[in-house]
Amino acid sequence: MKTTAIAPSNIAFIKYWGKRDEKLRLPTNSSISMNLSHLFTTTTVEFSQQYRQDTVVIDGTNERREAERVVGFLDQVRHRSGSASFARVESVNNFDKSAGLASSASGFAALTVAATSAAGLMLSEKELSIMARLGSGSACRSIPAGFVEWKKGRSSATSYAETLFPADHWRLLDIAVMVGAGAKKIPTSAGQRLVWTSPFFRTRLAGMDNKNTRLKSYIKTRDFPRFGELIETEALELHTVMMTSAPPLFYWSPKTVEIIQAVWRWRQEGLPVYFTIDAGASVHLICQPTGQIAVKTKLKQIGLINYVVNYPTGGTRLTDHHLF
Amino acid sequence: MKTTAIAPSNIAFIKYWGKRDEKLRLPTNSSISMNLSHLFTTTTVEFSQQYRQDTVVIDGTNERREAERVVGFLDQVRHRSGSASFARVESVNNFDKSAGLASSASGFAALTVAATSAAGLMLSEKELSIMARLGSGSACRSIPAGFVEWKKGRSSATSYAETLFPADHWRLLDIAVMVGAGAKKIPTSAGQRLVWTSPFFRTRLAGMDNKNTRLKSYIKTRDFPRFGELIETEALELHTVMMTSAPPLFYWSPKTVEIIQAVWRWRQEGLPVYFTIDAGASVHLICQPTGQIAVKTKLKQIGLINYVVNYPTGGTRLTDHHLF
Repeated sequence: MKTTAIAPSNIAFIKYWGKRDEKLRLPTNSSISMNLSHLFTTTTVEFSQQYRQDTVVIDGTNERREAERVVGFLDQVRHRSGSASFARVESVNNFDKSAGLASSASGFAALTVAATSAAGLMLSEKELSIMARLGSGSACRSIPAGFVEWKKGRSSATSYAETLFPADHWRLLDIAVMVGAGAKKIPTSAGQRLVWTSPFFRTRLAGMDNKNTRLKSYIKTRDFPRFGELIETEALELHTVMMTSAPPLFYWSPKTVEIIQAVWRWRQEGLPVYFTIDAGASVHLICQPTGQIAVKTKLKQIGLINYVVNYPTGGTRLTDHHLF
Repeated sequence: MKTTAIAPSNIAFIKYWGKRDEKLRLPTNSSISMNLSHLFTTTTVEFSQQYRQDTVVIDGTNERREAERVVGFLDQVRHRSGSASFARVESVNNFDKSAGLASSASGFAALTVAATSAAGLMLSEKELSIMARLGSGSACRSIPAGFVEWKKGRSSATSYAETLFPADHWRLLDIAVMVGAGAKKIPTSAGQRLVWTSPFFRTRLAGMDNKNTRLKSYIKTRDFPRFGELIETEALELHTVMMTSAPPLFYWSPKTVEIIQAVWRWRQEGLPVYFTIDAGASVHLICQPTGQIAVKTKLKQIGLINYVVNYPTGGTRLTDHHLF
């Protein structure tokens, strides 16, 4: 009855931003991501009739808003499994969850696999992805392995993520550069509710299918320059839609701009490296293994030493190493 | 035959970005600006049969590309006046022209008034504005006084700027904060040619008439909060259209973002100040006279001491103080 799961965070190359259905977390567009080997969440769940209430401890603390969201998720698991037991949930991230490195994606993916398994449910990868989506949209992409597409679908049953290519298809590196924790003031879900206030959102949506198709083909053929140009265009488009929302959603910090401009300078100097940026100030630098040392050296030269190097990795998995 | 003109720079609240006609510099939308009292260009022009060629000296130097553009303009003046004389042109800016503070606007406005007058042409304000537009689009807005609208028009003869309200209608202050000269790498005219590559440009255009109408009404009623919110929305929209062009036009520096976020923080603290940003990294802070000291104090607290305080001022005028 005690189960532990490890889930990777993921970096979206084509972003999820905007919901068709708020409660079911059905997205306005499909998105594509890669699981990140070195940013992950480990979560242990135990249902027991001896517990008098649900207990949620994340990174050693009990934060009320987070705990309520987890308890809401546990209710769905209980409903589905027919159980009535309370649970103890402990969860640790191997990174600072305020750094905007998608802790809710890895968090809800780990919770989904640990909680459903602890409740005795035997779910398929597709079913797990759908459940994770109900907890936090982008979490559904952390369930399958490698390079992943979350198809927007037409209903809850058809909106889930699947592996496009396994992790070993392409050795891309993601150097996640942490830019000042705390810069992110607007929770992602609150921000997403504003998408329709941007005059540009409809135009963005109209281009998403084409973007997803192109990106899949660039990943398939491992066309790094075209892949890189497209993910940068996509990241800038996402942030301009945010900035033109009312009120403006402005996730960047001065450091974000410094890194964007540095990447363009480095590329002009001949170093093949591209960026993408999620709903936060941190910048993910994408390069190939041959570029790793050069990118790290350049980062150090501009005083940036807080980063985590990731490669593509598998999906969420169970482990015997329980947290309690 | 020697004439000197002084022209103010201007700050656009609704921006000029995109041309319908490249050569005639007919804009895709009308724009609204305010003349700036303390950022100006003084230009002396003398036509003489003793000159064997045109000589152009700007801020003490002869830069070839600039000189060619000035000579092209002199040719139009000669064509119109029936003169065949060469000219000597000297021009000084009271600010560093690489700081992105619209030196071409004040420069071509001063050149227009000085050169046409030196050539013996007697032109109306409307005709001067049209001529200035042919030299540099936004220069047409520096010809009339105070708060100005450049109507996009339907042809060269109908695309010119007019005073909406005189300078004393509203005592707005523009604190132009200089952010690192040299950040602007893309000349404005080259950048404008990319407008149609942004997926968002058409949507922007569709909203411009409404924006201009609203801004005029806010200036008329001196509604500072609504005015301020609108100019910020407009500035962010302009820059997001630039950032989503292909290739991206990215004029901001890290300092730009720092100031944007500081302005929002200061407003939350109760200080009524708003920003606008032209095609450059520098930020214009707009406040009312009662806010001037507080804004300067705040700027100093974040280490920004390079700024010029402007108030609304008259248009381009002749003076007897020749430069040579």
